Amino acid sequence: MARVSVRFDDLPIRDDLRGLKPYGAPQAPLPVALNVNENTHPVPAEVTEHILDSIARAMSEINRYPDREFTSLREGFADYLGHGLTHDQIWSANGSNEVLQHVLQAFAGPGRTAFGFAPTYSMYPLLSRGTGAEWISGERSPDFTVDAGWAAEQIADAAADVVFLCAPNNPTGTPLTIDVIEAAYDATDGIVVVDEAYFEFAPHGTPSALTLLPGRERLIVSRTMSKAFAFAGARVGYLAADPAVIDALRLVRLPYHLSALTQAAATAALRHAPIMLSMVDEIIAQRDRITANIQALGYEPYDSWTNFVLFGGVADPAATWQALYDRGVLIRDIGIPGHLRVTAGTEDETTAFLDALASIDSAA
Amino acid sequence: MARVSVRFDDLPIRDDLRGLKPYGAPQAPLPVALNVNENTHPVPAEVTEHILDSIARAMSEINRYPDREFTSLREGFADYLGHGLTHDQIWSANGSNEVLQHVLQAFAGPGRTAFGFAPTYSMYPLLSRGTGAEWISGERSPDFTVDAGWAAEQIADAAADVVFLCAPNNPTGTPLTIDVIEAAYDATDGIVVVDEAYFEFAPHGTPSALTLLPGRERLIVSRTMSKAFAFAGARVGYLAADPAVIDALRLVRLPYHLSALTQAAATAALRHAPIMLSMVDEIIAQRDRITANIQALGYEPYDSWTNFVLFGGVADPAATWQALYDRGVLIRDIGIPGHLRVTAGTEDETTAFLDALASIDSAA
Repeated sequence: MARVSVRFDDLPIRDDLRGLKPYGAPQAPLPVALNVNENTHPVPAEVTEHILDSIARAMSEINRYPDREFTSLREGFADYLGHGLTHDQIWSANGSNEVLQHVLQAFAGPGRTAFGFAPTYSMYPLLSRGTGAEWISGERSPDFTVDAGWAAEQIADAAADVVFLCAPNNPTGTPLTIDVIEAAYDATDGIVVVDEAYFEFAPHGTPSALTLLPGRERLIVSRTMSKAFAFAGARVGYLAADPAVIDALRLVRLPYHLSALTQAAATAALRHAPIMLSMVDEIIAQRDRITANIQALGYEPYDSWTNFVLFGGVADPAATWQALYDRGVLIRDIGIPGHLRVTAGTEDETTAFLDALASIDSAA
Repeated sequence: MARVSVRFDDLPIRDDLRGLKPYGAPQAPLPVALNVNENTHPVPAEVTEHILDSIARAMSEINRYPDREFTSLREGFADYLGHGLTHDQIWSANGSNEVLQHVLQAFAGPGRTAFGFAPTYSMYPLLSRGTGAEWISGERSPDFTVDAGWAAEQIADAAADVVFLCAPNNPTGTPLTIDVIEAAYDATDGIVVVDEAYFEFAPHGTPSALTLLPGRERLIVSRTMSKAFAFAGARVGYLAADPAVIDALRLVRLPYHLSALTQAAATAALRHAPIMLSMVDEIIAQRDRITANIQALGYEPYDSWTNFVLFGGVADPAATWQALYDRGVLIRDIGIPGHLRVTAGTEDETTAFLDALASIDSAA
């Protein structure tokens, strides 16, 4: 057909979208990609085999719509999370972004507000505005922590309909302790979402916000399979909350939003949680190695309970990012002046990053 | 944990969601399920094998985020659709519901309106309201057709931001000819979405709205793999439009919205389009058999270019639905007084439906 592309601005697109750029980290096919906090360990062969068996069974009735209630998968998440949770307290969607979008569609949207302590996960404001809600930014200390009192004060002032607590925080790696979550919950009548996307990388024995669910019907604890389960490509996020919250989310989700392939793959992967989580300890070791080594190089890493390290003391982040890029190592400039962020990879990838960084003279 | 479910109404849910019920056809594990217009033919073994190979390759890097631009899949759709389309004119999402949601997020939403000729696909108003847009219902003749002049008149009066034309129409099966689409386009400055979900079941040689794309930058033609490709469980919808429309959709989609599993499965299935489409002719034959047979039973079937038949002349639809249910056959009461809808199944399923219906004395 004759190609007839018009200019974007000629289309009757919504005014609030004009001038925006699509979200997304720069992608580049470099040998060492440590830019988007993926789990760089492939899924072990024995787990892959069982996942493919599960998918093959799903394929036998792929002509039919999937289980709209994804009950087996919800049972799988309840078993994995423990704390006596049952499937009616579980929700899931195509990545935690869609999970959070469902929460915002049900509890925020036009005329309402959402709140979080900046800098935090950059999708929160985008998702909030995408549903028509206004975004309110709270503040953190210079070391990116927020204590219980200050958190409660800011949350009470904001009086938002939905409060996001990223625990531990992305993109800073900062721990958020359970007392801050309790104080935050008591300071609002709105929904409190504790985003535990990176929770599995916190020190063993750290209490999850899941322990706070009983008696707190406005509390939502979200998780993802992208990180600890090395499942970023499969797009599976989930949350635990009161069954009444799940009923609310059922009103805004698209029918059959989770494919039979996704349900089959995730259900099978969850059955191998111990194997999948054994990689987590390796990643934690590399994270701590990064922290120790870049400190020795004169940079200023922040305390991290995640699979990545944010570090300051970078004289010219764009120049350092480019110098690493030229050495085949992709990390992330997240836009905080003087800072860069790197994902903890395999031992070899981490070595490649540390060697490349050591070869650059760029500490401030 | 102690179970502490609150009442739904105690949650700070959006006021416009209170009192709503989740969308969804009744599900029941009956031997003959002809209620949701699925393709009841399983995917052939040789195609399944290639799809599983493709998924196995995707599993090897499932720990990484998927291709955000799903370029291979878009190339596959462009090849399948023909008409000289290229991948930059293609969009895809998790089911055509999500495709249409993206369109509404970009071009409708709060303060805007969407329009369609009722009765039509029941998700259009739900999706529109879900993005904050107001829904405007147009009218059809008693036989559910709309001619070009009347369509243009109603569309001009409505002055909606997004116009939906379901061609052929669900839940009535009604053909919509290309002259109506041309007239509709000329009658509005808004986006015109021609939903060709069932297009493959139209008579061979019927011109697609794809032929109208050149020079019409506000025209969108949506399709799905759920019906002709027997892929309802995989959740894959897509559309073709001007590249500027695709740029607009990129602003509202969630990053990485299509999983690597979905991309791998759909790309592989498209390579077997001729095999998949050979089932379509069998389904068309069963559809025409249903039409002929239920007419002989005294019902009033409507002209259908889809994989289902709507029929009137049912004295008590709820009673007939239940009588079929009791005989192991699930069809759909879509809420049009005196009418029921049945999907064309395999030859055996169709026989089971026709035998069951013949055993019930329920024509008006």
